[in-house]
Amino acid sequence: MRQAGRSLPEYRAARGPGSILEAAARPELAAELTLQPVRRYGVDAAILFSDIVVPVAAVGFGVDVAPGRGPVVVAPFRGRDDLRRLRPLVPEEDVPYVAETVKLVVGELGEVPLIGFAGAPFTVASYLVEGGASRDHARTKALMYADPELFAALLDVLADMALVFLRAQIEAGASAVQLFDSWAGALSPGDYARAVLPASTKILAGLADTGVPRIHFGVGTGELLGLMAGAGADVVGVDWRVPLDEARGRVGPGVAVQGNLDPALCLAPWEVVAEAAHDVLVRGGGAGHVFNLGHGVLPETDPDVLARLVALVHDTPMPPGERTR
Amino acid sequence: MRQAGRSLPEYRAARGPGSILEAAARPELAAELTLQPVRRYGVDAAILFSDIVVPVAAVGFGVDVAPGRGPVVVAPFRGRDDLRRLRPLVPEEDVPYVAETVKLVVGELGEVPLIGFAGAPFTVASYLVEGGASRDHARTKALMYADPELFAALLDVLADMALVFLRAQIEAGASAVQLFDSWAGALSPGDYARAVLPASTKILAGLADTGVPRIHFGVGTGELLGLMAGAGADVVGVDWRVPLDEARGRVGPGVAVQGNLDPALCLAPWEVVAEAAHDVLVRGGGAGHVFNLGHGVLPETDPDVLARLVALVHDTPMPPGERTR
Repeated sequence: MRQAGRSLPEYRAARGPGSILEAAARPELAAELTLQPVRRYGVDAAILFSDIVVPVAAVGFGVDVAPGRGPVVVAPFRGRDDLRRLRPLVPEEDVPYVAETVKLVVGELGEVPLIGFAGAPFTVASYLVEGGASRDHARTKALMYADPELFAALLDVLADMALVFLRAQIEAGASAVQLFDSWAGALSPGDYARAVLPASTKILAGLADTGVPRIHFGVGTGELLGLMAGAGADVVGVDWRVPLDEARGRVGPGVAVQGNLDPALCLAPWEVVAEAAHDVLVRGGGAGHVFNLGHGVLPETDPDVLARLVALVHDTPMPPGERTR
Repeated sequence: MRQAGRSLPEYRAARGPGSILEAAARPELAAELTLQPVRRYGVDAAILFSDIVVPVAAVGFGVDVAPGRGPVVVAPFRGRDDLRRLRPLVPEEDVPYVAETVKLVVGELGEVPLIGFAGAPFTVASYLVEGGASRDHARTKALMYADPELFAALLDVLADMALVFLRAQIEAGASAVQLFDSWAGALSPGDYARAVLPASTKILAGLADTGVPRIHFGVGTGELLGLMAGAGADVVGVDWRVPLDEARGRVGPGVAVQGNLDPALCLAPWEVVAEAAHDVLVRGGGAGHVFNLGHGVLPETDPDVLARLVALVHDTPMPPGERTR
């Protein structure tokens, strides 16, 4: 459960008031924040405490993450000259703390796998072009339509950064990776296929040799699930808008689905949570399904509800021989 | 094209700095703002200049619309007692200016039809419960899950208000109505069907006797299109995320589709706009399709692009005998 920490008192106590980028750059703190939800909930995997803008910030693009506002870019990406501000990422020099965090976490986790983490090119590009969070991604799309070559070059550079960033996490011990394309759902399937898929494929297909499971995550991506699977994903994230049995048809054979409980359901009375979680499990069909929320944990979530939810999923019988943990 | 005015210099000149609620309450100004896009673009219909919170503000719930922020509710809806703050709307007393505006507009429009306008219960409820715009609608969903009876009562009251509000617009001369459920796309199909559809059906099916076309609009509603059609809609709005030929299958027979050019495409070079618009027209299939943007016009849109777009749609040949204007 991504962003599970936000709902935990021990997270708020350890995290302190600084930027998430500062916290991610302190291996002992980042490791502690990664481990807290595993300790509290007994989930089946940890996800690295990080942020999608860590690589671009690390090469000096001028990005900070303001609490409650998300990434803020001092001088947004405006044209071809700005490509120079995105030099290749050298993980051991630019983000040595990430491998260090991964090693600390893996050392603590034992059998529990750690999922590595990177932002997908379109979502990172949206922050760079808009200068921050955006409802309609108008500037990003305008660039995509007006100068498809420059847009492709931007996404290609960001793909290279994500690729080496994830590879460094795998080399340090991550057992799986998740590529976050939070804003891909803002695109039509045609635009996604033409302008975004090549860059995301470069990352996911580019990690095939590592043998680790590759999770491709988005929100509002009901119409893109098949394309996202085709990018070289082993697992495709599905938010709560598409029932999981329907999603499986769109994802296609041989690719697992991840999801898809509405995070807002965790604010509901327990009986409602339990019924909805059971429905997700039934539609997931037991095999080829990673139970999860369809998006990050809402900060106001009661940790006890999440603990009960994890127990419910663990205690629900699966078809014999098909349970994968 | 909804919110087409925002991109027009004559709109900004006439509109002035006040709240949209103040502008909507001045019939001559609201009529002028309704007519401007028709004059400038020669579109095939006008849409009433109004706001989804006009009825709840008119019965004194305490709502204003802050420029750039959307509706702001002074004391949000928190429990059963707040239902009393939503007394029935009496259009001729509470919003006499709306019928007056409709009459002024219809008198000027001649052959061109005017589309009436109301916010759908879920979207209006979200503003009342959250106190303003929300990314995740967490409070609204929490109420929906925790107290389904109160939630249903709230939506039912809002449905009654929208119903008499739209009926008043039809009686004053509106030739069609559009029900805006901007946030319905935040819901899973199951939640939508159970908690929202009954209220929206009360409005749309409740207007069947008027004989005017009823348009049911949402964004990100790809999984809800069939349900939204079943609410008593003659036309279902489709954003750009679902190709229109695919959307038609989901909407089902006998119901038209409206859309679905991405508004951000209007920021693109003209050849890109033209190609995308042509694709929408082809997928729309000529009959049973109202060409439109998938969402409101972006404020930074060049009016000349919209003018060329309208001309392109008008000049594109349709299957013989099937063109409906």
